[in-house]
Amino acid sequence: MLDLTELVDVEVTLAYIKYAIFVIVKMMLMSPMTAFFRMKKKAFANPEDAASFGKDEAVKKYLRTDPDVERVRRIHLNDLENIIPFLFIGFFYSFTGVDLSTALLHYRIFLGSRIFHTIAYLVPLPQPCRGLAWGAGYLVTFSMVYRLVMVGLSLS
Amino acid sequence: MLDLTELVDVEVTLAYIKYAIFVIVKMMLMSPMTAFFRMKKKAFANPEDAASFGKDEAVKKYLRTDPDVERVRRIHLNDLENIIPFLFIGFFYSFTGVDLSTALLHYRIFLGSRIFHTIAYLVPLPQPCRGLAWGAGYLVTFSMVYRLVMVGLSLS
Amino acid sequence: MLDLTELVDVEVTLAYIKYAIFVIVKMMLMSPMTAFFRMKKKAFANPEDAASFGKDEAVKKYLRTDPDVERVRRIHLNDLENIIPFLFIGFFYSFTGVDLSTALLHYRIFLGSRIFHTIAYLVPLPQPCRGLAWGAGYLVTFSMVYRLVMVGLSLS
Repeated sequence: MLDLTELVDVEVTLAYIKYAIFVIVKMMLMSPMTAFFRMKKKAFANPEDAASFGKDEAVKKYLRTDPDVERVRRIHLNDLENIIPFLFIGFFYSFTGVDLSTALLHYRIFLGSRIFHTIAYLVPLPQPCRGLAWGAGYLVTFSMVYRLVMVGLSLS
Repeated sequence: MLDLTELVDVEVTLAYIKYAIFVIVKMMLMSPMTAFFRMKKKAFANPEDAASFGKDEAVKKYLRTDPDVERVRRIHLNDLENIIPFLFIGFFYSFTGVDLSTALLHYRIFLGSRIFHTIAYLVPLPQPCRGLAWGAGYLVTFSMVYRLVMVGLSLS
Repeated sequence: MLDLTELVDVEVTLAYIKYAIFVIVKMMLMSPMTAFFRMKKKAFANPEDAASFGKDEAVKKYLRTDPDVERVRRIHLNDLENIIPFLFIGFFYSFTGVDLSTALLHYRIFLGSRIFHTIAYLVPLPQPCRGLAWGAGYLVTFSMVYRLVMVGLSLS
């Protein structure tokens, strides 16, 4: 087994992995949350799901969209749209020779912004709370892109 | 070119890449399947698509949602929500010094769970078939997260 | 810090990172574009968003779906469905000992296909413009899968 610590200063990449796991777990928790709201509000997308909660007439009645369910689904989609770019960019960024403290600052703000985004979306808090939370994570990702571009330019 | 085999026991990472390719190809096949159902059911989201299958009145008629098309789209979205976390977590997991056989068990159960999930969603099989298929893949991913956390704690 | 250039021919992986950043940034730009169309068309998904643009009756009126907004959202979802597989497959592919020029050809066609796909979707151009753009990117990804399979078979 390779002892990576002998070869590279892997602290930043290990920090990346740690925060990547946090945001992935946060994103994955949206699945059971969607299921919970579908059951609580009796609002299903598939007849075979509604059939678990009633027969015939009930199945038809439960085959519907519900604002709260759609809200949770939008959080999940927004997570996919924002967290996945972060996961790739943050990985590349961890190899740019950045200081551990600077990298941690980026990773922590991103994690915080996505947690606050979910809270602001769920409550819901009045705008611009959710917008600012989204914007903070978006800017963190672009800040890492900026460093990648600068490092790339210095190589060529 | 680096001969990685001299440096690391790459068997697990190579196994990861193999199964990652399988699940990515499985996920990518949902795109032509959606197109197939849209054409078969004449249910399009864009006027320019419907226009390939008729004129004026037909375009309006074909601009509609269809339960079967929406079902395939939900499979694709569910794949994105579950397979992408697996791809990241499974990659990190392959560097935790795990036994090849244990890793293969995780990767194979995940692949099987996603294939069975798609079948259960498409047929559709009565619940809880699809729910169990989804849950198996979800638990596999969290089992890998668990190992990552344990290894991380032993490092610090 | 590891000087990777001493260990591996990293040119292809660096090229991958460069094009990965391009397509990720392209994908991320769909978020502000969705927000722009939502504001321009006054079509919001959340009451708290609509409330920024009016009161009571206006909030109800602005809580609606709009064909242009949905169009941009479909571009974003299509990006997720196609760009994320590319990001993983392209990463694995960069380690197959492929020529830099061949790899660049793949990465550049993919980037071009996704930019043209977005233009064809936004204008919208008549079909099969968008279909061909999508197909070009899809084939590039499968061409890389093909090489990965061939290299994998030669290893075993």
